Amino acid sequence: MKIPTFADVCEAHDRLCGHVVRTPLLRCDALDNAVGRPVFVKAECLQTTGAFKYRGASNRIMQLTEAERSAGVVAYSSGNHANGVAAAAQEAGVPALIVMPADVPAVKSDGVKARGAKIVYYDRQTENREEIAQKIAQERGAVIVPPYDDAIVIAGQGTAGMECAEQCQEIGVTPDAIVVNAGGGGFTAGIALAWSELCPQARIYTAEPAEFNDHERSFKAGEKQRNAKLAGSVCDALLTPEPGDITFAVNKKLVSAGLCASDDEAFAAMRFAFSHLKIVLEPGGAVALATALAGRVPGEGPLVVLATGGNVDPALFAQVISDRPD
Amino acid sequence: MKIPTFADVCEAHDRLCGHVVRTPLLRCDALDNAVGRPVFVKAECLQTTGAFKYRGASNRIMQLTEAERSAGVVAYSSGNHANGVAAAAQEAGVPALIVMPADVPAVKSDGVKARGAKIVYYDRQTENREEIAQKIAQERGAVIVPPYDDAIVIAGQGTAGMECAEQCQEIGVTPDAIVVNAGGGGFTAGIALAWSELCPQARIYTAEPAEFNDHERSFKAGEKQRNAKLAGSVCDALLTPEPGDITFAVNKKLVSAGLCASDDEAFAAMRFAFSHLKIVLEPGGAVALATALAGRVPGEGPLVVLATGGNVDPALFAQVISDRPD
Repeated sequence: MKIPTFADVCEAHDRLCGHVVRTPLLRCDALDNAVGRPVFVKAECLQTTGAFKYRGASNRIMQLTEAERSAGVVAYSSGNHANGVAAAAQEAGVPALIVMPADVPAVKSDGVKARGAKIVYYDRQTENREEIAQKIAQERGAVIVPPYDDAIVIAGQGTAGMECAEQCQEIGVTPDAIVVNAGGGGFTAGIALAWSELCPQARIYTAEPAEFNDHERSFKAGEKQRNAKLAGSVCDALLTPEPGDITFAVNKKLVSAGLCASDDEAFAAMRFAFSHLKIVLEPGGAVALATALAGRVPGEGPLVVLATGGNVDPALFAQVISDRPD
Repeated sequence: MKIPTFADVCEAHDRLCGHVVRTPLLRCDALDNAVGRPVFVKAECLQTTGAFKYRGASNRIMQLTEAERSAGVVAYSSGNHANGVAAAAQEAGVPALIVMPADVPAVKSDGVKARGAKIVYYDRQTENREEIAQKIAQERGAVIVPPYDDAIVIAGQGTAGMECAEQCQEIGVTPDAIVVNAGGGGFTAGIALAWSELCPQARIYTAEPAEFNDHERSFKAGEKQRNAKLAGSVCDALLTPEPGDITFAVNKKLVSAGLCASDDEAFAAMRFAFSHLKIVLEPGGAVALATALAGRVPGEGPLVVLATGGNVDPALFAQVISDRPD
């Protein structure tokens, strides 16, 4: 089990520079006032494919050998990783097949198809996506690009942490804390590796849907805890059974604690981002912002929030912004 | 009548650097494919207050004398300029009063109030906002910050042109054309001053709502033409009676032609920006993108589109994204 290091994140940063979008760090007075401290939102919804996942997928696919490239890649994903892999594979001229849950939002499966990848659907409640992917990969001699529990993927995700540490320095801000949406914990692990070196004063928190707080409970227990269920939150991007082995090995050392927010709080954060930041967030991409708006992040100094994705079906988004604010 | 120069834009760029948001230049394969050429969207909806107007307002208010600062500023605006002036005045500790049309979207008047400015409403069809503003300014000894027909305001708006010329250079793109939403033509004039020096190969186009194409007709006639009506498009940010005197003096020399798009095409562009770029655009902020998506911009090389604002009422945005794509 290869555990990624800060050096791996630095290498990925060099590799991906100019290839991924250096997403902006947004702020506004309304957000500072609502949270009661300076808040900066790293808008990864503006990343290629509308989510940070393109970083890790690119870092993996750009390192394939010639033989691996022709056999192609296989991935399993709730949606954003699928699109990241499909886009990175298409750019590299590598065939891609994605195993996706049958209840995935259409906006996510449409993106995968538009990017030329093939889809195999599975049932989130009864089937094991990793087994399905492994079987297909073995048949084809293809490389699996895991969504989070992989050193190269984690290093790629960490490039967002390198960027926002640089961006804080550029504007003269010394952050007190950073909050990262966590499904399998790969984005958190990558950012934690970067920030433990570049912003060692900052506390690092995960953000999860309230009933899928496996990270929060795992940090408290000191060992991996599973979620009681595998579906039932609108935050489809964050519904994983438990933290990854590699991600948890990193995060249990570097993360201060887990935070969580309800689906309604995620909706309120989507409305806030629409009204004041002019960005589109999906529910799972808005949970970290929701914990900030709920005043749940310890400390009083500058806070960085990762807004991880914006792939949301129009009907849901329309409903969320039409609801009256709380 | 002081006509601004490239040097004025450069000075404004130095003054505003670090004060305004260096908004990102966004792109995606779906957009390139839809338009049939490389397209880059300068996302000024991510500017402070959700629109480029903050640039010009800041450039003016940062140059007030001490005596002028205590008397305060007065502005007249369909909404985005009002918010730009209110925000820049609040930051500078200067009192602001804004004359706004009675039919302005609530999202725009709410922002002005939240930023501590006072509002006087007028009827867009029967009253003259400039006369109202001048009367109030005379009574108070206050400085008027005009929305577009002012050399200092135009120079401030031009900083967006400086930025996106720099951003094109950073990514090695030589743009063939740039399209800018035009109401009074101040944003176009500022950008044209910057681009005629920095990207002299690029053609410059205005974009207007189809029935409010005063710039398009004025360029053809060689002199200022008025719109037949003053209301009746959902693109509230772009409904001005005619080009400004100063803006037209600049634009008639530097702009190639005027383009336009229907309200429905603006809605389609808002949907596209929502789905593929993950940004929120108001109708008037999406017209330039609409002309690009409609294939109306001459040439085949790289194209830069200004997305000028994102201040749209949630109910309208929900309706637009819920409509089925054409």
